[in-house]
Amino acid sequence: MSKKVVIVGGVAGGASAAARLRRLDEEAHIVMFERGEYISYANCGLPYYVGGVIRDRKKLLVQTPEAMRRRFNIDVRTLSEVVRILPGEKEVEVKNLATGEAYRESYDYLVLSPGASPVVPDIPGANLENVFTIRNVPDSDAIKAHIETRKPSTAVVVGGGFIGLEMAEVLMACGTKVTLVEADTQVMRALDPEMAAIVHCYLRDNGVDLRLGDKLVSIKGSSGVEEVELASGKTLPAELVILGIGVRPEVWLAKEAGLEIGPTGGILVDEYLRTSDPFIYAIGDAIQVKDYVTGQDVLIPLAGPANRQGRLVADTIAGQPTPYKGSQGTAIVKIMDMVVAVTGSNEKTLNRLGREHLACHTHPAPHATYYPGGTPMAMKLIFSPGDGKVLGAQIVGYEGVDKRIDVLATAIRAGMTVFDLQDLQLAYAPPFSSAKDPVNMIGYVAGNMVQGNVEIAHWHEVDKRLAQGALLLDVRTKREVEDGAVPGALNIPVDNLRERLSELPKDKEILVYCQVGLRSYIAYRILRQHGFTAKSISGGYRTYHMVGKDKACFESGNA
Amino acid sequence: MSKKVVIVGGVAGGASAAARLRRLDEEAHIVMFERGEYISYANCGLPYYVGGVIRDRKKLLVQTPEAMRRRFNIDVRTLSEVVRILPGEKEVEVKNLATGEAYRESYDYLVLSPGASPVVPDIPGANLENVFTIRNVPDSDAIKAHIETRKPSTAVVVGGGFIGLEMAEVLMACGTKVTLVEADTQVMRALDPEMAAIVHCYLRDNGVDLRLGDKLVSIKGSSGVEEVELASGKTLPAELVILGIGVRPEVWLAKEAGLEIGPTGGILVDEYLRTSDPFIYAIGDAIQVKDYVTGQDVLIPLAGPANRQGRLVADTIAGQPTPYKGSQGTAIVKIMDMVVAVTGSNEKTLNRLGREHLACHTHPAPHATYYPGGTPMAMKLIFSPGDGKVLGAQIVGYEGVDKRIDVLATAIRAGMTVFDLQDLQLAYAPPFSSAKDPVNMIGYVAGNMVQGNVEIAHWHEVDKRLAQGALLLDVRTKREVEDGAVPGALNIPVDNLRERLSELPKDKEILVYCQVGLRSYIAYRILRQHGFTAKSISGGYRTYHMVGKDKACFESGNA
Repeated sequence: MSKKVVIVGGVAGGASAAARLRRLDEEAHIVMFERGEYISYANCGLPYYVGGVIRDRKKLLVQTPEAMRRRFNIDVRTLSEVVRILPGEKEVEVKNLATGEAYRESYDYLVLSPGASPVVPDIPGANLENVFTIRNVPDSDAIKAHIETRKPSTAVVVGGGFIGLEMAEVLMACGTKVTLVEADTQVMRALDPEMAAIVHCYLRDNGVDLRLGDKLVSIKGSSGVEEVELASGKTLPAELVILGIGVRPEVWLAKEAGLEIGPTGGILVDEYLRTSDPFIYAIGDAIQVKDYVTGQDVLIPLAGPANRQGRLVADTIAGQPTPYKGSQGTAIVKIMDMVVAVTGSNEKTLNRLGREHLACHTHPAPHATYYPGGTPMAMKLIFSPGDGKVLGAQIVGYEGVDKRIDVLATAIRAGMTVFDLQDLQLAYAPPFSSAKDPVNMIGYVAGNMVQGNVEIAHWHEVDKRLAQGALLLDVRTKREVEDGAVPGALNIPVDNLRERLSELPKDKEILVYCQVGLRSYIAYRILRQHGFTAKSISGGYRTYHMVGKDKACFESGNA
Repeated sequence: MSKKVVIVGGVAGGASAAARLRRLDEEAHIVMFERGEYISYANCGLPYYVGGVIRDRKKLLVQTPEAMRRRFNIDVRTLSEVVRILPGEKEVEVKNLATGEAYRESYDYLVLSPGASPVVPDIPGANLENVFTIRNVPDSDAIKAHIETRKPSTAVVVGGGFIGLEMAEVLMACGTKVTLVEADTQVMRALDPEMAAIVHCYLRDNGVDLRLGDKLVSIKGSSGVEEVELASGKTLPAELVILGIGVRPEVWLAKEAGLEIGPTGGILVDEYLRTSDPFIYAIGDAIQVKDYVTGQDVLIPLAGPANRQGRLVADTIAGQPTPYKGSQGTAIVKIMDMVVAVTGSNEKTLNRLGREHLACHTHPAPHATYYPGGTPMAMKLIFSPGDGKVLGAQIVGYEGVDKRIDVLATAIRAGMTVFDLQDLQLAYAPPFSSAKDPVNMIGYVAGNMVQGNVEIAHWHEVDKRLAQGALLLDVRTKREVEDGAVPGALNIPVDNLRERLSELPKDKEILVYCQVGLRSYIAYRILRQHGFTAKSISGGYRTYHMVGKDKACFESGNA
């Protein structure tokens, strides 16, 4: 008895499910419906195609319907939209978009992989020509054609998430003046604010006009867009608008069929990706998943999990049931030369959930400092105060960021603690790392915090502590201090600290900082063992300076 | 009561121990003896300094004795050799190499970090001028001076390990014709032979005269070296000889003091790095460690573990005892543009120990294939047949090799299985990876093997199976076959396999290969489900071709 499996959606998860299912079950009858013209296209490559980094459009089409038919014996039907599910009859109603013809197709198992659709704000002008979202190949063709024929001198990108940042880069590279408008006070929601500050400064330094904490209220123009108006009342000229506000799970089909929708707005599935109907599975950006770290219900629209889920659903339907173990939100984006990556939970989320945690910052070089090249990155690690379990990480830098986030993503998946990070034996030769890799080092810093070998203060707590009478101590060299220091800080270089202890009060809390946090830790150890009360400030002057610079720009930019 | 801790050796582990101990114990009296002029220098950077990649010699000196004194209040004594340990009296005898003066120094705890010394073969001419080993800064100065003043046109590098390969690269870059002589039939012992074959081809393609399975029997010349003679009877001109045969733990001091030496020749220590004397610890290249994967006693002279051990020994002495959990031999080397990396066990070791295991090969691109750049790498994963536990990995490639070996090293440390590799959520954007990262993919391949979804044959088994009547099936396209195929193989492209099944015998084993192993797996699934007996050949034509090319070169080179 061969199974008949119908798959709705032929990109990412859908195509993965079809191919895996065929490999496991040569007999199954597999029908894959795709509303668009293309299946299995390189979604994440679209901005690079628009920008000309990917020159050959054919390269975006990872699989063609014909190839999928030949190799996997899949009945692929493109331009075919499933418009209704009839769970009682185990049938779907399909509309052939080329002919307009409608028909029904039966199934034993149905797999929904409809994805998520870009959010379009309900504001005047959102439907004007030259206002684009980017979801599929035709969208990209349209933007690319617009850029090439009209050569817009100004563009407004709305939304500072992955797509918004990638599109800002693409447009900049085309010589267009870009304004990035983001309603939140920071780009990349997955970052905590002090890490986002680094990205803000980089964007501004590279000519992006960054408008944070402001939002579009209307788009104006006669045929095409000419300018946009912001909530702050400002207007900006724009010959092109890209909407990268976010995506929303496409659930109407599931909803109309009576399938349960989760509180986040995604299709509700169990750990085997089964919906509330036992013969219907759902995968990809349209479903609600468990956050691997917090256990909360979340929407995490990412290509990796979608592909994984496609494979798992095939395993399960083929009789090798394998659960999906949750999403940890590992993500990365390249913005010009900068690389920003995250995995696991951030502090904002943990604070919102009231989960106790600790965090630390380091600024390591990606490889041996004596080997040429290698700009330092900014790393943040978030972990449990009790057992030191790693909860999340954020890295902003250049070379070597992708490697460290992947190691930390693996560590989180394995349930490792900060002490386990110390024990990792990573590959070291001078071009690649240091004898103590940045991951080992941040494990050491965090381990010292968990074990009580150091107490940390974060910059955002410093003002309050100073108001309570604390003393701020800068342990860098005189030369470094001359290049910039926190106003009011006392300077005693760490190398002179032992002989100058008498200058410090024993009845006040001493907040110590250096450039990145290494020397302030040494100073902390000296002070504490000599009976002082001290805290080492996480991330040092570098973090202070970046956050301050960002704040100043924000204030002047929004003035 | 402050402790007095004496450290013998001021590089890597020794310097780490001193600094960590001071941070934990401001009161301890810490004396660090170093026989040479420099402490804490960048050992692993020496070849790059010789080659001029690192231009500034000062950059090699990570810490100076003066800086170490000032910042950490360490009593650093350079040019001071500890020539005897008197465990009964808890004293060491020290010789001041500058003055010739000898004296004794007492200790509460002694930490030995003497390192390992380069092996110099006992052959005529080994002591000639222009025959060098490379261990420390003065060695490097001498080689560098030799290259710069004499501009040798020919050099012989003896030993195909890390140092040998790095020095071969350095000399090539200086315009010297390099012959690399290795007694084993392959370079880099940590690789299995089919992986080493890729390195061999690359070295030869880049002009290295590779002499495998041959060794030096004498070095000839009047003042400096002029030529070398090999066991095969061949002679090679050489104006410079670099000995990179390996290192030997420096144990004479420990041995004379009656400390136990392990069967491997390294100083015997327990998990807290304590020698057979409870007041004496030993760390770094001089000690015997446990192999993290096999549990065997081994020597693993690497900078990362040495640094880690230095820190641990300080924790233990300071009253925060922390065990060393064994070495897994993660290592990496850059040879021109090629990167070779390993972690955990290889098949040679597991075969020698009689440990059951499986292995598979993949050839993934380092990032999305539609994004520009990115040469495919060759990956090998070794794992347990029962539970799929990851035992080891080897990668040869270019971009992205270091990242994948680090993820796999972390997975091994965490005791992950090949199924866990499938679940890893790694950072994906087109410039960095694919939606299924190469680590996920090799997890899928291996998982299919463990679960019995595919049966694999390795190339080295193919001849035997063919002799037993198996059929060799090439499922690539006609075009690919025309570019090169295994003689005698039947060609049916995978996309035509279903309609041409009648051409295949049901009573013979069918060994299927494609280019890298992906299509042969699909073909295997089709064949098996249609009642054929089949095996998919791991690594495909690419592995076959590389091993064959290497073999042909080896045979002609040694003809």
